[in-house]
Amino acid sequence: MSFSTLIGLFAGISIVLVAMTMGSSLALFINVPSVMIVVGGTVAATMIRYSMKESFSAIGMSFRVLRTDHQIKDLNQLIDITEELLRINRLKGPLAMEGYEINHDFYRDGIRMLVDGYSSELVKQALKEKNRLLIDSAETSAGVFRAVGDAAPAFGMMGTLVGLIQMLANLSDPGSIGPSMAVAMLTTLYGAMIANLFALPMADKIESWAQGESYRQMMIIEAIESITEGHNPAVMRDLLAPYLQGRKKVEVDG
Amino acid sequence: MSFSTLIGLFAGISIVLVAMTMGSSLALFINVPSVMIVVGGTVAATMIRYSMKESFSAIGMSFRVLRTDHQIKDLNQLIDITEELLRINRLKGPLAMEGYEINHDFYRDGIRMLVDGYSSELVKQALKEKNRLLIDSAETSAGVFRAVGDAAPAFGMMGTLVGLIQMLANLSDPGSIGPSMAVAMLTTLYGAMIANLFALPMADKIESWAQGESYRQMMIIEAIESITEGHNPAVMRDLLAPYLQGRKKVEVDG
Amino acid sequence: MSFSTLIGLFAGISIVLVAMTMGSSLALFINVPSVMIVVGGTVAATMIRYSMKESFSAIGMSFRVLRTDHQIKDLNQLIDITEELLRINRLKGPLAMEGYEINHDFYRDGIRMLVDGYSSELVKQALKEKNRLLIDSAETSAGVFRAVGDAAPAFGMMGTLVGLIQMLANLSDPGSIGPSMAVAMLTTLYGAMIANLFALPMADKIESWAQGESYRQMMIIEAIESITEGHNPAVMRDLLAPYLQGRKKVEVDG
Amino acid sequence: MSFSTLIGLFAGISIVLVAMTMGSSLALFINVPSVMIVVGGTVAATMIRYSMKESFSAIGMSFRVLRTDHQIKDLNQLIDITEELLRINRLKGPLAMEGYEINHDFYRDGIRMLVDGYSSELVKQALKEKNRLLIDSAETSAGVFRAVGDAAPAFGMMGTLVGLIQMLANLSDPGSIGPSMAVAMLTTLYGAMIANLFALPMADKIESWAQGESYRQMMIIEAIESITEGHNPAVMRDLLAPYLQGRKKVEVDG
Amino acid sequence: MSFSTLIGLFAGISIVLVAMTMGSSLALFINVPSVMIVVGGTVAATMIRYSMKESFSAIGMSFRVLRTDHQIKDLNQLIDITEELLRINRLKGPLAMEGYEINHDFYRDGIRMLVDGYSSELVKQALKEKNRLLIDSAETSAGVFRAVGDAAPAFGMMGTLVGLIQMLANLSDPGSIGPSMAVAMLTTLYGAMIANLFALPMADKIESWAQGESYRQMMIIEAIESITEGHNPAVMRDLLAPYLQGRKKVEVDG
Repeated sequence: MSFSTLIGLFAGISIVLVAMTMGSSLALFINVPSVMIVVGGTVAATMIRYSMKESFSAIGMSFRVLRTDHQIKDLNQLIDITEELLRINRLKGPLAMEGYEINHDFYRDGIRMLVDGYSSELVKQALKEKNRLLIDSAETSAGVFRAVGDAAPAFGMMGTLVGLIQMLANLSDPGSIGPSMAVAMLTTLYGAMIANLFALPMADKIESWAQGESYRQMMIIEAIESITEGHNPAVMRDLLAPYLQGRKKVEVDG
Repeated sequence: MSFSTLIGLFAGISIVLVAMTMGSSLALFINVPSVMIVVGGTVAATMIRYSMKESFSAIGMSFRVLRTDHQIKDLNQLIDITEELLRINRLKGPLAMEGYEINHDFYRDGIRMLVDGYSSELVKQALKEKNRLLIDSAETSAGVFRAVGDAAPAFGMMGTLVGLIQMLANLSDPGSIGPSMAVAMLTTLYGAMIANLFALPMADKIESWAQGESYRQMMIIEAIESITEGHNPAVMRDLLAPYLQGRKKVEVDG
Repeated sequence: MSFSTLIGLFAGISIVLVAMTMGSSLALFINVPSVMIVVGGTVAATMIRYSMKESFSAIGMSFRVLRTDHQIKDLNQLIDITEELLRINRLKGPLAMEGYEINHDFYRDGIRMLVDGYSSELVKQALKEKNRLLIDSAETSAGVFRAVGDAAPAFGMMGTLVGLIQMLANLSDPGSIGPSMAVAMLTTLYGAMIANLFALPMADKIESWAQGESYRQMMIIEAIESITEGHNPAVMRDLLAPYLQGRKKVEVDG
Repeated sequence: MSFSTLIGLFAGISIVLVAMTMGSSLALFINVPSVMIVVGGTVAATMIRYSMKESFSAIGMSFRVLRTDHQIKDLNQLIDITEELLRINRLKGPLAMEGYEINHDFYRDGIRMLVDGYSSELVKQALKEKNRLLIDSAETSAGVFRAVGDAAPAFGMMGTLVGLIQMLANLSDPGSIGPSMAVAMLTTLYGAMIANLFALPMADKIESWAQGESYRQMMIIEAIESITEGHNPAVMRDLLAPYLQGRKKVEVDG
Repeated sequence: MSFSTLIGLFAGISIVLVAMTMGSSLALFINVPSVMIVVGGTVAATMIRYSMKESFSAIGMSFRVLRTDHQIKDLNQLIDITEELLRINRLKGPLAMEGYEINHDFYRDGIRMLVDGYSSELVKQALKEKNRLLIDSAETSAGVFRAVGDAAPAFGMMGTLVGLIQMLANLSDPGSIGPSMAVAMLTTLYGAMIANLFALPMADKIESWAQGESYRQMMIIEAIESITEGHNPAVMRDLLAPYLQGRKKVEVDG
């Protein structure tokens, strides 16, 4: 559920911000050059590994995971919809399904293809292709975020080293040691925050989200097949029952 | 055995508490903002990865593992019970089994279904489903605790960095350096304690507990099958013997 | 795409250089002996593990990955070329293909062999051998860069230890502590830069580049086979379609 | 061979002790509370993961591995013994084997069962069960020691953090800083010693010891089978020859 | 190629030595007790894991890998030799092969067995056994060096902790702090040097060397088989061709 992810993201950032403002002004923790080193370096190291297209796709994927849209998540609800569609299809034919509103993009696209007159086989193939693309794209996106999570602490450490070396070479004014070290350590903090508050949890979330979504899509593919074959609702429920129990593993190239 | 886990948890916490009170007051180690950063940040990072439902289920699972209830753990005892149930079933029929007290939830539920007249096949299927749910839920719960064990030291480090930066930027009063650093290091200590005293061992324990429990459940499923088929006690003992020797691996989707 | 990699490399190095020049002269970060320790030690440790031939091949591979040449990367474009070649071959025979310009070394080599009169079987075998060599060489090259990424931080740490020990043994002049420590820490910075800005991302890039290139080569091998068998363009498109959808996994020893 | 392990254990501990006594009194390194924190915390964290039975079995296993008993280790010697037993069995029957002394517990137990009149099949099954239990128990024991090796440095670090925090909060007397830090660092040293001098090498040793012992037991099982079938010595040597060359992999459930 | 390994070893050590002598006398980095702690502790921890026989065999293996002998490494050259031997065998019989000098121990041993009149089958089996022993011994030796590479930094850290604790407990003379810390840090430096300059690269090298050598031996076994069967040189070349292309994977138990 995206709510948990969103709350977690905001809560994590808020907690660190509150900790920063307690006992000192927040301005102490804002240092534009430090941000530039860590964010810039992390972006650079990620660009070496991944093409821009892959990186942008990862950003898009992260928004898709965070989007608290109203797509149906419940498998039972999807089965109920399937039953209604089945009835409509049997009574009034496929064209009548056009008017039925489904709150799930993948399902709606499949039904629209049926309405448009594509053969059952073609619809199934197109949906499977879409499903495979989702999995591929989620894997690459998770990889991009994992690369970010690896690079950020490394650049945080490099920034701190640069700052410490600058400070150590300039010990003439002992009063500036403290503030200089404080600034030097900021990059380490930024690196840790980017990795632990954002990149690594997001990589995990994308993976588990894609697994769940792909699972739902596999069920929808079978549901649409059931509709085109004009199954009896009871038969359809029997066919989809294993999905409710988590028994069916994702099989992509069927 | 939960006793060992419970003793270990209390002993570990006590030892660290005793170490804290030796040579200083325990109050030195209590700092509400530090607790908030580490605990709050860890909860936030875990919420990004797992839905609330999964997190609460993990907490429930941890209580279930710690519960020192009187459920039967010994496989031999379960076989003895099976023999008695077998005799009751053969002599007086399935309804007579209702009065027999079994100190094992899973076994009791299975027998109750038989008493209620469900077919042998249905009982077996329902119990297998229950067994599969246990394994799934234990895997997710262990994953939640592992995520906690990863996040806690990371937020401990972030808290310490925040504290150090605040201290370094404010070196005007040298007398406050020591206490400030002490407070800054508290979050690292909290993070290490959460990970090593609680989260990581608990993740391991949940996994091994679920493995043992699932193993027992698989034997009980075969035991109940044997009862419904009215086997001779000797045949039943022969059928279940491999479980006593650890030979049978868990097979879920039979 | 090599552009992203090149931009990433330059951006990463620039960002660190800018960070160095901010607040101090860049000269502070240049220390020839420190460079020698880290670069020399890393080269030495890599030479123990890999033969010189393998190391030079890895350097060559890194240039090949970075080269922003105009080799065709788009699979659809390669299929269009195949269709034209197919037509030329059917109308005017294999010799006529000599005049056709293909902007892909591997494809051009294959067609040249056909033009030179080699049998279809031999061309296929030679191209497969070339494909296998690419994969082997990419694996070794990625291994070399990974060894560099392991060794550089280790030698950075050793250099810092050497510098710290020299400084600590000579504490007579407190004014020199800062600059000495600064120099000592330079090797750690160099090691981190070599590993994170160059070696480790390059190892990843070589692997993913070789995977993509090998995939394209596998399609070209099937395309050339299709040309020699004089397929109909539609049949050829059907045969190569699975590659466009990423369905065909690389199979080397066919 | 246990000699190497025993010498290694004593040499490792002696070297660290000698290093401690050089330049300072050994008393400096003995601090009862520090020992309590590390040892107690490690025991506690291990108890959370493993039941007491498993922990005690691991301790027993470690003594068994260290025991420099005179059990036969040489496979050729075991084959010679088998030849003699084979002759005795053929000439005077199984009962005559009672008087023959075998310096290998597992072999002796197998022969005693034969002498006691158990069927060949039953003896084989009992010995295989014993072999399987050895492997299971060695795996669990190695796991216990690995858990100890994980927990000890973690509690060492926690002890040091507790000590440092106490010291930092109490900077009034600068003269006490050094000794306090020394005491604080003791727990880290203890943790590293427990993990590197004892727990982790012992886990490795138990695993490799159990592998070798199990291998010998598998050969003995085939040797005893050969005796009961009254094979010709040459046939027996042929049957067991692959074991001498390390060709036969351990197969447990035959 | 051993040259690269030897050069790497000497270059790595020289670079670190040069770094040590720059700005201070080398004597600063020599401390007999520190050497004793790290080397002794590492040897002890390795002895706990491996028997003395295995450790000595690992040392022997490292010399074998470093030996810049004149054994033939080129597969083509080995095929040329096989062709000559094939001709000699066909023209003058196996005994005539005695006079032929082969600069490869494994090949020479195989031919000597043929000359001595052993059957083709026996020669093949003996050589395969030799090949298997090489692989086993290389695996164990690499394991020994990896254990050394694990133990050395751990004992380096322990030595530094011991030194720091001794220094901290004795802060009466502030002038001795620097030199004491310098000595304490020596063990960490020694541990890092042993692991990164010697043990870990050597473990990798032994593994890759044994893989290459075993590959050559597998080809020689087929070459000798070809000689005993009196193949035509062209047939022999056809049989061995796949080895030149790296197609044949090592198969031990044929």
